[in-house]
Amino acid sequence: MAARPRRKSAKSAEAGDEFERIRRYFAPLAQNFPGAFDLTDDAALIVPGPGQQLVVTTDALVAGVHFFGDEQASLIARKALRVNLSDLAAMGATPLAYTLALALPPDHAEPWLADFAAGLAADQAEFGIYLAGGDSVATPSTLTMSITALGTIVNGQALRRNGAVVGDLVCVSGTIGDSALGLIARTGGLGDLPRPAQRDLIGRFELPQPRLSLGRALAGVAHSAIDISDGLVADLGHIARASDVRMVIDWARIPLSPPALLAVAKQPQRRDLILGGGEDYELAFTIPPDQAGNLRAIALSVGVMVTEIGRVESGAGVTVLDQDGNDVTPLSGGYRHFEG
Amino acid sequence: MAARPRRKSAKSAEAGDEFERIRRYFAPLAQNFPGAFDLTDDAALIVPGPGQQLVVTTDALVAGVHFFGDEQASLIARKALRVNLSDLAAMGATPLAYTLALALPPDHAEPWLADFAAGLAADQAEFGIYLAGGDSVATPSTLTMSITALGTIVNGQALRRNGAVVGDLVCVSGTIGDSALGLIARTGGLGDLPRPAQRDLIGRFELPQPRLSLGRALAGVAHSAIDISDGLVADLGHIARASDVRMVIDWARIPLSPPALLAVAKQPQRRDLILGGGEDYELAFTIPPDQAGNLRAIALSVGVMVTEIGRVESGAGVTVLDQDGNDVTPLSGGYRHFEG
Repeated sequence: MAARPRRKSAKSAEAGDEFERIRRYFAPLAQNFPGAFDLTDDAALIVPGPGQQLVVTTDALVAGVHFFGDEQASLIARKALRVNLSDLAAMGATPLAYTLALALPPDHAEPWLADFAAGLAADQAEFGIYLAGGDSVATPSTLTMSITALGTIVNGQALRRNGAVVGDLVCVSGTIGDSALGLIARTGGLGDLPRPAQRDLIGRFELPQPRLSLGRALAGVAHSAIDISDGLVADLGHIARASDVRMVIDWARIPLSPPALLAVAKQPQRRDLILGGGEDYELAFTIPPDQAGNLRAIALSVGVMVTEIGRVESGAGVTVLDQDGNDVTPLSGGYRHFEG
Repeated sequence: MAARPRRKSAKSAEAGDEFERIRRYFAPLAQNFPGAFDLTDDAALIVPGPGQQLVVTTDALVAGVHFFGDEQASLIARKALRVNLSDLAAMGATPLAYTLALALPPDHAEPWLADFAAGLAADQAEFGIYLAGGDSVATPSTLTMSITALGTIVNGQALRRNGAVVGDLVCVSGTIGDSALGLIARTGGLGDLPRPAQRDLIGRFELPQPRLSLGRALAGVAHSAIDISDGLVADLGHIARASDVRMVIDWARIPLSPPALLAVAKQPQRRDLILGGGEDYELAFTIPPDQAGNLRAIALSVGVMVTEIGRVESGAGVTVLDQDGNDVTPLSGGYRHFEG
């Protein structure tokens, strides 16, 4: 882990504080990963096992953009780690190690950092991943984090976006739209829902659940997979484009949590938020129809709800139909930039 | 490469712009690395060769802290990549791939991004490394970048900080202090030097030269190595501490460039800047005395100047002596926090 000096003209903590910060808060997160050398060397050493490939993913989060910034530091840390773990899950990979780049504003000192590190420690224990290195620097402005997560997968077993074929079933894990609704609730926009329902939704926004066990179990079973970060329709659009197929989704089959069902019952136009809002960090994937029984067994074994929501057809793009067969695909959604 | 949607409340470019940005500027940087999947999947796949370990390092750079921000975008990009390549060099590794997390302020749009990508492309060609993935997000504030570089090394050959032994020679590559002086020159603080000398020094600050060939050649030869980012004395201090030894350095033998020699001749107190200023991105390393002849052959073969500047003794810390034997070790320098 590097602690580099600031430009002398910049107002920031002394370099010594940084070394101390690494020693106190981050080195303990690396102590069970031998290749991290307790964060005292220039780089970490990583050795995948024989027959394994490394899966590498990077996600950045900026305060005021990807999170509010006034959340508990431990929640911010865990979300930053989990959005990366979700990418590993989408590839079917097993977590191995991660590096952290942290740009800290001046007011993010002792108690904040201790809580941040505690959040990372909790999720490291939960998901079996270790800090292998990184960088901790001062910033005059906004808290910004970047995590690069490394996972392993058996050669050739990675779940890709480009494997969907006509006839596949389209499936998702968990429930969809909670995080987008949680973001609205967080800013006071779901006043028509009872407080406990709002709190449930906010919890989904603040702390996603990476579907690692499901992803691993789907390797060799699913034809394609992605984690839902941009929004259900946008991310299915990524699979459709990479696989050169069309997806037809039934709105009525999309699994909604009780608070989300209530939110849509009260204001039907919230459907667009569920289809396009993003940050679900559930898996969307396609499987051949003859794997439907196997999928139920997998869902049971990993304890994650899995729902069939549509089918893969020939063509392009994503279409969402309501129960009367009307096209209710939201007009927004980055995927449209990629059609045709 | 992930392009995630912004929180709707944040003022930022639309998600579609981000996909377009990745397609136009970053996907071309990944096209020769098959495991990057043209940046269209959730993660990249990396396969080290048989008998190889992966070396992983992360460095973050913040505008106004690690660089000024008004430099040419291509220079900013190349420096961000090179400080990471320098960490690979310090381990003796061969570059393989990197991921980039980029937090872009609103005014960093088309021409800036094109120049930024061109800088990365130039250095990819020069150093044989490829973009494997990353994240491109909007920030309301300061340009912030984080790069995670991956390299390979033969099992067990990594250069570490903890291998220095009493009797070793202490050596450095290139010349020391130019970057620190260049930073001063950049802000108008070297007015007593001719313009061309100032420009040379600024060039060293803006575009470091990672010593990859030298690092590779030192694997199996040097007992310990580090790249000089915190400052010569601070970084030698890291080796001293990790190896439980003392370093004694002769100020008169530290290699200075002609502009640096001139700067010190005009103001002798600039010596402290050279010893403590940092961002040289030269290698500092120790070798057993019987490898001195071999080291000269290595320096010739890789075309990098290498200079013996001191010796490893028993004890702790780093001491710099002038030609009269006076202790001229600067009082500042993060290394002191780590002495016994």
